[in-house]
Amino acid sequence: MSLLVVGSVAFDAVETPFGKCEKMLGGSASHFSISASYFTDVRVVGVVGGDFGDDDAIVFATHAIDTTDLEKIPDGKTFRWFGRYDYDLNVAHTLDTQLNVFADFKPKLSDRSKQSRLVFLGNIQPDLQREVREQVPNAELVALDTMNLWIENTRESLLRTIKGVGVVIINDAEARQLTEIPNLIKAARTILSWGPKALIVKRGEYGAALFTSDSYFAIPAYPLESVFDPTGAGDTFAGGFMGYLSSQEKLDEAAMRRAMIFGSVMASFNVEEFGTARVRRLTHAEINERFSAFKRMTHFDEIPFERVAQAVK
Amino acid sequence: MSLLVVGSVAFDAVETPFGKCEKMLGGSASHFSISASYFTDVRVVGVVGGDFGDDDAIVFATHAIDTTDLEKIPDGKTFRWFGRYDYDLNVAHTLDTQLNVFADFKPKLSDRSKQSRLVFLGNIQPDLQREVREQVPNAELVALDTMNLWIENTRESLLRTIKGVGVVIINDAEARQLTEIPNLIKAARTILSWGPKALIVKRGEYGAALFTSDSYFAIPAYPLESVFDPTGAGDTFAGGFMGYLSSQEKLDEAAMRRAMIFGSVMASFNVEEFGTARVRRLTHAEINERFSAFKRMTHFDEIPFERVAQAVK
Repeated sequence: MSLLVVGSVAFDAVETPFGKCEKMLGGSASHFSISASYFTDVRVVGVVGGDFGDDDAIVFATHAIDTTDLEKIPDGKTFRWFGRYDYDLNVAHTLDTQLNVFADFKPKLSDRSKQSRLVFLGNIQPDLQREVREQVPNAELVALDTMNLWIENTRESLLRTIKGVGVVIINDAEARQLTEIPNLIKAARTILSWGPKALIVKRGEYGAALFTSDSYFAIPAYPLESVFDPTGAGDTFAGGFMGYLSSQEKLDEAAMRRAMIFGSVMASFNVEEFGTARVRRLTHAEINERFSAFKRMTHFDEIPFERVAQAVK
Repeated sequence: MSLLVVGSVAFDAVETPFGKCEKMLGGSASHFSISASYFTDVRVVGVVGGDFGDDDAIVFATHAIDTTDLEKIPDGKTFRWFGRYDYDLNVAHTLDTQLNVFADFKPKLSDRSKQSRLVFLGNIQPDLQREVREQVPNAELVALDTMNLWIENTRESLLRTIKGVGVVIINDAEARQLTEIPNLIKAARTILSWGPKALIVKRGEYGAALFTSDSYFAIPAYPLESVFDPTGAGDTFAGGFMGYLSSQEKLDEAAMRRAMIFGSVMASFNVEEFGTARVRRLTHAEINERFSAFKRMTHFDEIPFERVAQAVK
């Protein structure tokens, strides 16, 4: 058993106030799987074109990512995304999207992939997400990401897909848009009422929160003095989260909380350089050091206030 | 020794999407002192007009707040603020401000007040803040709040005042505006380089963060399904923070962290009803229960990831 991800494998061109990169490996499945590979075995379901070369394939190979289900269409072109960030790095401006081979993507799962214990449905059309989900009926945990495009254009299909997963991982604007409820706590309760056992809300520089029917857990983002390229941070978070869970026997709340921290740790590395560059060359020591930093950043002693303590006058 | 606050005592008129209130006790010193009164003895330095009646005075009296230095000008009128919140409750729209007796406010400190151990300089003109600060040279800890108006119009004076305090308590927009640095972590480092030992950045629904030269501590806000009236939340936070510290013998980092939680607890109650209504009738049991909730919301087990843990396949 292992972790399966379905999503895009792409070439990104990104401009930020700090530099530009004309072509680099990107896409939700790439960011997710490289991040998750530090914790578990990962399989990728996706599609690439003939322009996907050996130097791209080697990135997956060096992280022991199983690409058996990464279909290659020799006479097609790989999905391309062109984006720009201004000084507010929270907002990505899409300059151009070329779906290419991704336009006709039909996820095909090998028999081994169908046995995956954990599944991440990356941000693709919700009908496709559901097709994949139905092929892994015995998965212990299925998580899903989505985006404004699907919330606006394929809402009914998305709601059906959400009913069939255990964890929803989205950002705060998406949670509000999906429920049409401005208060995030109420919005979260509504999403949980549709079926998922847990909702993770990503809040960018403000961190992330985990909602279940009877608990709330919130963490800050790792404090960075400079964010270089936020592309893929959300998928890198999801990769750390699902990857860590995949390494654990018990998928209980305590494991989910630690998984939130590992997700945030991986995302914090991701934004330090272009694309997957920083995450590709991480060590477990670096990951654990930043995990400990989260403890130092959030820990406090629980000493209730007592009126008698007011002796200091 | 005790806690001293200088700031406004006002009558507020507030409209929110959920209701309106034409006249209620408000102002930074009121919100601060009522909040702090749950933890320590508080003295208020401020000014009110002849329209400040017994039913207003009794609010301070029932919380044992010392109003010896709350000057009353019988033929003047109390400071009035008229504000409105739309559905985005993070943004206050000022409809009208009538300074009245506050226009000529000159803080006067009694000898007892000058012996205060902790001092909070509420959001008033920075020259006045400095005048007060200079009258309490032996205070163990002085904290300051400010706002965009003073950052824009009296920047030099504000910077001089900041150099003379130990703790700055502002919101994230103010931290960015004050330093002209968009990255909050860099902005925080810059403010600390001016002299203060600690900076607290309030982030509204995202919580708050405490920066020192060698540490970072960040907490979420208490999750509320509805925010009724955010007026005074910042001062109520500061009141809980400084009030709790005032009850402690050691003002070290551990105490500051707990003080951040108590500040957030008090602010979370403040926004549940108009003005000071909710905070006025709190019990210590309610405060401690919400303090414990913060622990449950932020706690996780520190178990580093080990590659060998990957036995689950």
